[in-house]
Amino acid sequence: MEAAIDMPHIRLSERKNELLEKYEEYRSLGLKLDMSRGKPDKEQLELSMDLFRNIGNLVSEDGTDCRNYGAMDGIIEAKKFFASLFNLSVDQVIVGGNSSLNLIYDLISKAFLLGLNGFEKPWCKLDKVKFLCPSPGYDRHFAITEQFGVEMIVIPMTSEGPDMDMVEELASKDPAVKGIWCVPMYSNPTGITYSDRVVRRLAEMETAADDFIIMWDNAYAFHHLYDQHDRLLDLIEECRRFGHPNRAYMFSSTSKITFPGAGISMVASSPENIARLKKQISIQTIGYNKINQLLHVRFLKDPATLEEHMKKHAAIMRPKFETVLDILEKNLGGKNIASWHKPRGGYFISLDVMKGCAKRVVQLAKEAGVKLTPAGATFPYGKDPNDSNIRIAPTYPPIDELRTAIEILCVCVELAAIEKMEG
Amino acid sequence: MEAAIDMPHIRLSERKNELLEKYEEYRSLGLKLDMSRGKPDKEQLELSMDLFRNIGNLVSEDGTDCRNYGAMDGIIEAKKFFASLFNLSVDQVIVGGNSSLNLIYDLISKAFLLGLNGFEKPWCKLDKVKFLCPSPGYDRHFAITEQFGVEMIVIPMTSEGPDMDMVEELASKDPAVKGIWCVPMYSNPTGITYSDRVVRRLAEMETAADDFIIMWDNAYAFHHLYDQHDRLLDLIEECRRFGHPNRAYMFSSTSKITFPGAGISMVASSPENIARLKKQISIQTIGYNKINQLLHVRFLKDPATLEEHMKKHAAIMRPKFETVLDILEKNLGGKNIASWHKPRGGYFISLDVMKGCAKRVVQLAKEAGVKLTPAGATFPYGKDPNDSNIRIAPTYPPIDELRTAIEILCVCVELAAIEKMEG
Repeated sequence: MEAAIDMPHIRLSERKNELLEKYEEYRSLGLKLDMSRGKPDKEQLELSMDLFRNIGNLVSEDGTDCRNYGAMDGIIEAKKFFASLFNLSVDQVIVGGNSSLNLIYDLISKAFLLGLNGFEKPWCKLDKVKFLCPSPGYDRHFAITEQFGVEMIVIPMTSEGPDMDMVEELASKDPAVKGIWCVPMYSNPTGITYSDRVVRRLAEMETAADDFIIMWDNAYAFHHLYDQHDRLLDLIEECRRFGHPNRAYMFSSTSKITFPGAGISMVASSPENIARLKKQISIQTIGYNKINQLLHVRFLKDPATLEEHMKKHAAIMRPKFETVLDILEKNLGGKNIASWHKPRGGYFISLDVMKGCAKRVVQLAKEAGVKLTPAGATFPYGKDPNDSNIRIAPTYPPIDELRTAIEILCVCVELAAIEKMEG
Repeated sequence: MEAAIDMPHIRLSERKNELLEKYEEYRSLGLKLDMSRGKPDKEQLELSMDLFRNIGNLVSEDGTDCRNYGAMDGIIEAKKFFASLFNLSVDQVIVGGNSSLNLIYDLISKAFLLGLNGFEKPWCKLDKVKFLCPSPGYDRHFAITEQFGVEMIVIPMTSEGPDMDMVEELASKDPAVKGIWCVPMYSNPTGITYSDRVVRRLAEMETAADDFIIMWDNAYAFHHLYDQHDRLLDLIEECRRFGHPNRAYMFSSTSKITFPGAGISMVASSPENIARLKKQISIQTIGYNKINQLLHVRFLKDPATLEEHMKKHAAIMRPKFETVLDILEKNLGGKNIASWHKPRGGYFISLDVMKGCAKRVVQLAKEAGVKLTPAGATFPYGKDPNDSNIRIAPTYPPIDELRTAIEILCVCVELAAIEKMEG
């Protein structure tokens, strides 16, 4: 968004005055709207309350009493459930606790301290570890690699995933490049799903490091807004086909299917990777919460039941996404000062404002009572090189609050653009 | 147990034949008795099923919807609950997921990778880290430090806790000695509770390392078998009084109060240590399972309700412990070939057989259909220097199976002793 609004200076000044008037009007209302949190609303949470109806006996199908110790890698029906969702065998799956982020952190932690399957040595023994970070991306991924002292390299996102020319170039030449962060489906925050071509190139490419891993955070695999939805190629299978079976680790959870923070999670990979991981995890815990695993599988049952359940989520979320997109189009469409992608699933809308304006927009919005995710948060080290990306999380606020918040946001986007053009 | 049975050789041989006859009799039954697992029995698990009755709304007292993201360090009522149990303030407590072992592992992991509060550098930057390991102790503690490459030093257990002369000597002279593992109440497996004197010496002693920590796994704090129960001095308070406020990290959980593997856990320390830990954990997870925290606090309510609940556990466990102790006394008492402590709480009875005989006893028992915890498991690296300690876990099997298993065990203990004396 470097092009200027196509209007003479005098009209620009008039428009600014109109916008300032609107802005002051909003500000005088003393609103407190929070658009920063990518979480389900109350109505969505109610969809899963039947999970607690008829607790019944808490015995797994193989006789394991889920109330007692044991079954470190998850109860058999939970492993089968995730395996059926992702076309895996049960020996490719570990079912964890309430947080896939926790599994993700633990995997990186083990890569550093102990080494994963196939590593020559743990990464903590190396002078330098670098990670490829398709951006804008998920701030909590970047926070993990930042905590471990990893050098993070920004990879631009295209309309079909990360810039693969750049990924291949860096991964093939530099043995310090040890991995890549991916949210491959309805990516956080762009909403883009990686194309088959991108997935295949990730699976096929040669890497300078033998211990290069793909952190495949498949958080929104079932989070479609429309019946006509995106499809993601199976990375684990592609990696196997291309002779790199141990490259990919996939994560998923029910956080935005049942309850954020009280769902169940999983990590999947090659049988060999998973066997090694189980051995390492057996030192860390006696097991994850099996009661919660059992209640989840009894509630979500199978892929078809899950799909029906997700349609109920979509029915609540779709109007919110469309409200945001309509208001953006109405206020900013054709003005050449902002662009956005229309996602067909996931939890976010990614708005790119005029270069150098994102921080200013977030500040203006804040002063008018609208809290947004901090500008830059979607980039490594919290630094957006273009100061352009703003993450919109439409799901949590009630729809009337959402409407007001986005109207205000649009005023701020246009105001910041005019300020910029005025220099 | 180095002294021999006080009987002439001819009588020894007669006794051996008697025992072999008994042993063969048991073996011919083809039994499959498992005495290896320190876990509650089914009846104990039933005590907590009301936790799931009347789920009601899932909103915390401060308005937090426990079904959604947030409250990374635990919901307020869960922090208050643990604080009230251990005489702490809420800023000294983090309430975690289903496993205190997981919190313990994570703390050691953070000590190595990131450093804890007050550390000059993370332990992974050091050439050598040593830990003091009062033994017999908890195998899973030792497994953690073994995984991290720590050199573990065996500290003998006395009747009032670890040999403090040795602890002080090692901790005060060697800056590589960074910590000590403790199960201070109804210790696993000895059943001993640390005396006030031992607790004070741990709090007061000078250590060569500034980053010396006490891993205080208070797993059995409420697990009394009798109304007249042991009492443990408050280590965190003693550390504060003696000017070492950041030395102690205490862990506890409801694993053997409600459901093993589906309870809630906590870590407690000085406010400063906990503040630092919260910051580090915020990268690792968005939060632990708050629904489970809420259900637990609503069920266990307060210290008085917890105490009543634990009396129900004791009523189930006490006969099992007494059965074991009665059979040991009847068969081995006065024979000078085995000794044991009579615990007033916890989950184990620790049996010391004649030096060099533990492995043989476990093997004999196994061949007769009784599975015991592997000999040596209660020592670092799985190596009991005396090959003498056997951990008995009386809680899980039904009482008639338990009786048979201990009768068989006693035969094996005596047989192994005679074999030994025969050379």
